[in-house]
Amino acid sequence: MSKELVFGHKNPDTDAISCAIEYAYLANKLGDEVEAVALGKTNNETNFVLNRFNVKAPRVITKAKPEVDSVVLVDHNEAIQSVDDLADVTVTSVIDHHKINFSSAQPLFYRAEPIGCCSTIIYKMYLENNVEIPSNIAGLMLSSIISDTLLLKSPTTTDDERNAVPALAKIAGIDDYEAYGIEMLKAGSDVNDRSATDILEGDAKSFDMGGKTVRIGQVNAVDLNDVFKRQAELETTMTDLMADKSYDLFLLLATNVLTSDSELLALGEGTDVVEQAFGTKFSNHRMNLPGVVSRKKQVVPPLTKAFD
Amino acid sequence: MSKELVFGHKNPDTDAISCAIEYAYLANKLGDEVEAVALGKTNNETNFVLNRFNVKAPRVITKAKPEVDSVVLVDHNEAIQSVDDLADVTVTSVIDHHKINFSSAQPLFYRAEPIGCCSTIIYKMYLENNVEIPSNIAGLMLSSIISDTLLLKSPTTTDDERNAVPALAKIAGIDDYEAYGIEMLKAGSDVNDRSATDILEGDAKSFDMGGKTVRIGQVNAVDLNDVFKRQAELETTMTDLMADKSYDLFLLLATNVLTSDSELLALGEGTDVVEQAFGTKFSNHRMNLPGVVSRKKQVVPPLTKAFD
Repeated sequence: MSKELVFGHKNPDTDAISCAIEYAYLANKLGDEVEAVALGKTNNETNFVLNRFNVKAPRVITKAKPEVDSVVLVDHNEAIQSVDDLADVTVTSVIDHHKINFSSAQPLFYRAEPIGCCSTIIYKMYLENNVEIPSNIAGLMLSSIISDTLLLKSPTTTDDERNAVPALAKIAGIDDYEAYGIEMLKAGSDVNDRSATDILEGDAKSFDMGGKTVRIGQVNAVDLNDVFKRQAELETTMTDLMADKSYDLFLLLATNVLTSDSELLALGEGTDVVEQAFGTKFSNHRMNLPGVVSRKKQVVPPLTKAFD
Repeated sequence: MSKELVFGHKNPDTDAISCAIEYAYLANKLGDEVEAVALGKTNNETNFVLNRFNVKAPRVITKAKPEVDSVVLVDHNEAIQSVDDLADVTVTSVIDHHKINFSSAQPLFYRAEPIGCCSTIIYKMYLENNVEIPSNIAGLMLSSIISDTLLLKSPTTTDDERNAVPALAKIAGIDDYEAYGIEMLKAGSDVNDRSATDILEGDAKSFDMGGKTVRIGQVNAVDLNDVFKRQAELETTMTDLMADKSYDLFLLLATNVLTSDSELLALGEGTDVVEQAFGTKFSNHRMNLPGVVSRKKQVVPPLTKAFD
């Protein structure tokens, strides 16, 4: 087999970067030539993780075809989240844990599981293939699971994650994974040096709801005051983004990673429908959402239902 | 979990029917309530297999929603090949070995491998889950692999099939799997009692090639004379089908399952392009294609290339 590239989604988070590194190591051990790359710069949390486990950040690519004929997608499957020239290369494998919107001209290896973290799937692939997990790879897997599940508190968490975390912490030499996890989440949630656009758009996704384009960003913080002390600046930027990109409604879910509660900031059309969806009212464009941490499981479904 | 239905594609072959039965047994062993059903009547080959291993044919359904909220797809993933009301139910799992054209609103379990037979994947799932394979289930798996790979001769065959066949034959109590396989393929390839339409359309698929609608049927036989002694009748029916369904070109790949050679019968526009694709000429609307058994791997790709 000729060389392949493996990468996670654009706007990469810790799981997207780690999955690529984890997959490449596994594939190389199994005799395939695979290089981990990234579709964007690593964020603060990922930099903390890579630094902690002494792993180099993958180089960033924008196109695959100049280098290879085939690629492997991890932690994503939709073309819109993938490399720009995806149509010009063959996807030979997909490992993912998201909803699916994928087509291919040829049969391929596709493994998706509805679980909390894509690294958990790759962890299982190491076990199934009897490939020993090096300490630093275990560190990446552990960090990804903590990141995606907010220390196993997100409702997306499954027994697969709950079983993997202590096993991986042991291999990675982390005695207290909760303490490590909080340290990591804190490192990733410092919003003070981030621009308003980055806070709003850094992890945002668009959804079509009842004919409206709803943009939903999410930002993690250890103290939500760090976000809302900049509310005026965030609202100005939201308004600009809605005008520029034709979003009808912009929501920012600000999540306290220590308490697993969120506050929702909203501007645009249909905020009354958002109030209906969550059974609570906005005050100063904000509403409390205690216990809400997952956009995928706790925000998008009630909104979709209310708008449709 | 509430009860689910599992089924293979419409126009079911031995693998489609067997996969559903194999999956349901595995899922039930693992504690889920799953019933195997079918999206059409079993064919002659499958009837031979079910009879040989004393397994009841699954009941046929046309809609899923009246019975269940969620379903499992085996041996297919595309909506067009699936139950009519697929959009009204949730797909919780897909096990398949075809190209992918699938989308979902939620994450799900999806396992596809680019190998010869879908039953081979389910065989591996039994092993991974340490579920003992009953003798009759092993018989279905063995028969499916023999059917899909024409006794391990198709270029779609992988080491997974080559390893599974002797292991499954042993569990199924089949001493000579080649003799059994030939007996099974013969039972499935008796074309004498099939109508011309059934021979042409029974396993046909449409392809868009360079703007033309190319219909490609395939029929297995142990003696190609059984097919071509009815050439006049087949050509009349082909002509009618092309007029009725607006096909531009109709191809029937008649495959000798004992020698793994085929003969191609063609009518319509672009037969010159077909000649180009295979580097040989039609004579009396027929051409010999020695060694060709796989529509997917040996017919569609060269034709697509020649037409584009």
